[in-house]
Amino acid sequence: MIRPAELIQRKRDGEELPPDELAELVLGYSRGEVPDYQMAAFCMAVYFRGLSRAETFALTDAMIRSGETIDLRAALGRKVVDKHSTGGVGDKTSLAVGPIVAACGVPLGKMSGRGLGHTGGTLDKLESIPGYRTELTLDEYVAQVRDVGVAIIGQTGDLVPADKLLYGLRDVTATVDELSLIAASIMSKKLAAGAQAIVLDVKVGDGAFMKTLDDARRLAETMIALGESAGREVVCLLTDMDQPLGAAVGNALEVREALATVRGAGPADFTELVLDACAKLLALSDLGIDETEGRRRAEAAVVDGSAEAAWRRWIEAQGGTADESALPAAPLVREVPAPRAGHVVSLSAVGVGLAAVHLGAGRRTKDDVIDHAVGIVVRAKRGDRVEEGQVLAAIHARTEEQAADAIAEVLAAYELGAEARPAGPVLLEVVR
Amino acid sequence: MIRPAELIQRKRDGEELPPDELAELVLGYSRGEVPDYQMAAFCMAVYFRGLSRAETFALTDAMIRSGETIDLRAALGRKVVDKHSTGGVGDKTSLAVGPIVAACGVPLGKMSGRGLGHTGGTLDKLESIPGYRTELTLDEYVAQVRDVGVAIIGQTGDLVPADKLLYGLRDVTATVDELSLIAASIMSKKLAAGAQAIVLDVKVGDGAFMKTLDDARRLAETMIALGESAGREVVCLLTDMDQPLGAAVGNALEVREALATVRGAGPADFTELVLDACAKLLALSDLGIDETEGRRRAEAAVVDGSAEAAWRRWIEAQGGTADESALPAAPLVREVPAPRAGHVVSLSAVGVGLAAVHLGAGRRTKDDVIDHAVGIVVRAKRGDRVEEGQVLAAIHARTEEQAADAIAEVLAAYELGAEARPAGPVLLEVVR
Repeated sequence: MIRPAELIQRKRDGEELPPDELAELVLGYSRGEVPDYQMAAFCMAVYFRGLSRAETFALTDAMIRSGETIDLRAALGRKVVDKHSTGGVGDKTSLAVGPIVAACGVPLGKMSGRGLGHTGGTLDKLESIPGYRTELTLDEYVAQVRDVGVAIIGQTGDLVPADKLLYGLRDVTATVDELSLIAASIMSKKLAAGAQAIVLDVKVGDGAFMKTLDDARRLAETMIALGESAGREVVCLLTDMDQPLGAAVGNALEVREALATVRGAGPADFTELVLDACAKLLALSDLGIDETEGRRRAEAAVVDGSAEAAWRRWIEAQGGTADESALPAAPLVREVPAPRAGHVVSLSAVGVGLAAVHLGAGRRTKDDVIDHAVGIVVRAKRGDRVEEGQVLAAIHARTEEQAADAIAEVLAAYELGAEARPAGPVLLEVVR
Repeated sequence: MIRPAELIQRKRDGEELPPDELAELVLGYSRGEVPDYQMAAFCMAVYFRGLSRAETFALTDAMIRSGETIDLRAALGRKVVDKHSTGGVGDKTSLAVGPIVAACGVPLGKMSGRGLGHTGGTLDKLESIPGYRTELTLDEYVAQVRDVGVAIIGQTGDLVPADKLLYGLRDVTATVDELSLIAASIMSKKLAAGAQAIVLDVKVGDGAFMKTLDDARRLAETMIALGESAGREVVCLLTDMDQPLGAAVGNALEVREALATVRGAGPADFTELVLDACAKLLALSDLGIDETEGRRRAEAAVVDGSAEAAWRRWIEAQGGTADESALPAAPLVREVPAPRAGHVVSLSAVGVGLAAVHLGAGRRTKDDVIDHAVGIVVRAKRGDRVEEGQVLAAIHARTEEQAADAIAEVLAAYELGAEARPAGPVLLEVVR
C-alpha cells in the first residue's frame, strides 16, 4: 500500500517514481481513496519537476485502466481514424475534418472536451447546434461511427474516469499546462476510445499551451511514443497559434465557418489546415493511398458536395438540426475599424480569445453558462494591408456594453506596422 | 473577490502576491470557502517559489485574524514569556524550562504542537503523564499562567484556526518543510497566544527541518522580524540537531529526563541548553536582570529545589500526577552494545528519531496512537570513546521483535571511527 504523502514528497524532491507506485496513486485517486488535496499537491510537484518518459507511460496506462476501453477495429472490422488538437483560438478543425474524411469512406470517431481558459472546446461548439447530443452511450457511439462514418461525443464517465477527475482538478489548481500531464490526458482518451490511427494537431504560440516550437516538439514526441507503444499510428502537426485560426472565434460562428469550409468557402489558412489533416488521416486509413491522393480525394469531396452531405448525415444522426439557419445569432454586430493604415504585424490569439470569453463565448469558472451566439470574426490577419477605417473584425455581442469592451480588446490584440511582414504558414512542422 | 486558481498560478509563476489578496485566500480557506485542494496546490507552489518577507507577514497576519487572540499582558498586568522550538529528536527543552523560569518568578505560557515525522511533540510528551489535561479553555489557560506561573497547552480551535487547518493539510501534502510557511505557522501561534517576549530554538541538522545554518539563520531572521513588527521581543537560538538532544528519545522517557534536569541530574548537553534558554527568558522578562544574573538564578532554582516544586505545582494544576513513578514504562529494555571500540564520530538524529517512531513513540499517519512508554536512551554521543561491547544505547520496547529492529536501526545511526572528534557545542549561534 503506497503512502500518497511520501510519493508527493519524492516527486517534489525530483525523484523518478516506480511505475507501479505511480499507477497505484492514480487508480487510488480514481477510486476516491486518495483525496483531491493530495492529488493537487502531486500535480503541482509534477508541474515543477516534470515526469520521465516511463512515468508518463505509467500515468497514461493507469488512467486507461481506470475505466472501460473501446476496440473500434473489432467493432467495425476495419480501421477507424481520430483527430485531436491541443486547443487554440478559433480552432474548429475537427468539425470540418470529420465529415470530409467520412465522405471519403473512412470512419472517424472522436471524444472531445470543453473549452478551457481562452481556448474554445469542440464540445461547446457542437452544443450551439440545436438538438445535438454530445452524450451518446458507448454502444450508440460505436454504431454511429459504423453506420454514419463520423461521431463526435463528449467524454463519458465510463472511459478514463481518472482523467476526467484529474482534468477537473488541474483546471482549478493551475496545473493544466504541464507537458507530461497534457500528453497523458490526451493520449489516455485517444487510446481508450479505440481509433487505430490518430492525427494530432499541436498548437504553438501565444494562444496555445505550448509557447515554443521546442515544447511542442517534445509534447508531440511524447504523444507519438505513447501511441506507438499501444500499437497505434500517430502523426503530429505542429501548427501556428500566434493568431486565431481562420476568421471565426465563438461557438455558433465557428460552426458556420466549419460548414462553409466543408462547402469549399472557408478562410484560406483554415481550409489549408483542414485539407492537410484530411490528407494525413486518409493516408493513415485502410484505403491504401498516399497523402497526395488523400489530399486530392479530400478536395474532391468538398467540391462535389459529398462532404456537405456527410456533415448533414452526421449532425442529424446525432440529433442536431443540420440547417445553418437554426444556429443562434447574436442580437448585435459591431465593427472594429482600423485606427490607421498599415500592415497587420501581429494579432494576438490569446487577446482575441479572452475578448471572446468576456463576450460570453467561454467560461471564466466551471459553472459559467456559455452564450453560443456571441464571438468575434477577424477580417484582417497577419500580413494583411489595411487602410484607415477598414474593418479589422466584427463583434457579435449580447449587449452594447460588452460590444464596446470587445472592440477595445480586439483593437489591443492587433499590432499595425509600417512594413509588410509575411503571414507565414499555419503548418509549421510535421512530427512522425 | 479573489479567484484562487489565478492566485495559485501567479505564485506558481513566481509572482509576489499583494498582501490583501493573500490574506483573502487564507481567510477564505479558514472559512471553508477555498477548498483543501486549491490550498494544497498553493502550498506546493510556495514550496518551490517561496514567499517574500511581505507575503510572509500577510500570511501570518491573516492566520492570526482567522481566530481569537489573547493579551496576556493585559490579563496578568505583567510581562509573560514563551519559548518555542522548531522541533527535533529528544527535544524536551520546554518541559524543563517552564518550571525553572516559573520558579524564578517569571510567568511562562505556551501552546504546543504534536509530533511530526521523526520529531517528537511537546504535547505528546505531556500526555504520557497520567491525568495531564492538554486542552484548557482560554480562561483556564490565562488563570493558570497567572496563578501557577506556567501552563503548556495544546492548540485550541479558537486561536489561529487557519494555521491548524493549514498545518494538517501541509502534513499530508509534503509541504511542511518550507521556510516561510514554518515561520508563519510558528509566529502566528506565538503572537496570538499573547506572550510579550519569546525565545525561539531553531534546530539545525539532519534531524531538523532546517538542514543548514544558513537556512536556520534565514528562518530566525524572518521570525524575529514577524515578532518585532507585532511589538514583541524575540531572541533565536540556533542549536545542533545532528544528534539527539540529551539522552532520552520517546515520550515518558523524555518527561523523566526533563524532571531529572529540573532536579539538576540531567545530561550535560541538555542541561546547558535549558539553562541558556532560561537565562535568555529571564533577561527578557520584567525582572530587570541581565543574562548572567538570569543564568545564576536559573541554576539556583535547580539547586535549591524550587524548580522541582514549580514542576509539581504546574503538573498538578493541569490535572496530572507529578510523581515520576506514575509514568508508563516499557515491558522490555534491551541494550545496544558497541560492535567494536572507537570514537563516536556521528549519531544520526533522524536515524534515532525514526527508530523511536518505529517502536511506536511517534506517528506514521495522523491516526496512529502513540505508545508513550517506548523509546530509546542513548548513552554514547558524538565525541565519546567506547570500548567493544560497551552499551551505546538502551531500547525501551513493547515486543522483542520491535526491540530487535530498533537495535539494528540505532546501530546504523552510530558511526564509530578511529580518531576522536570533538563533540561541538549544542548552541551554535544566537540571532537577535
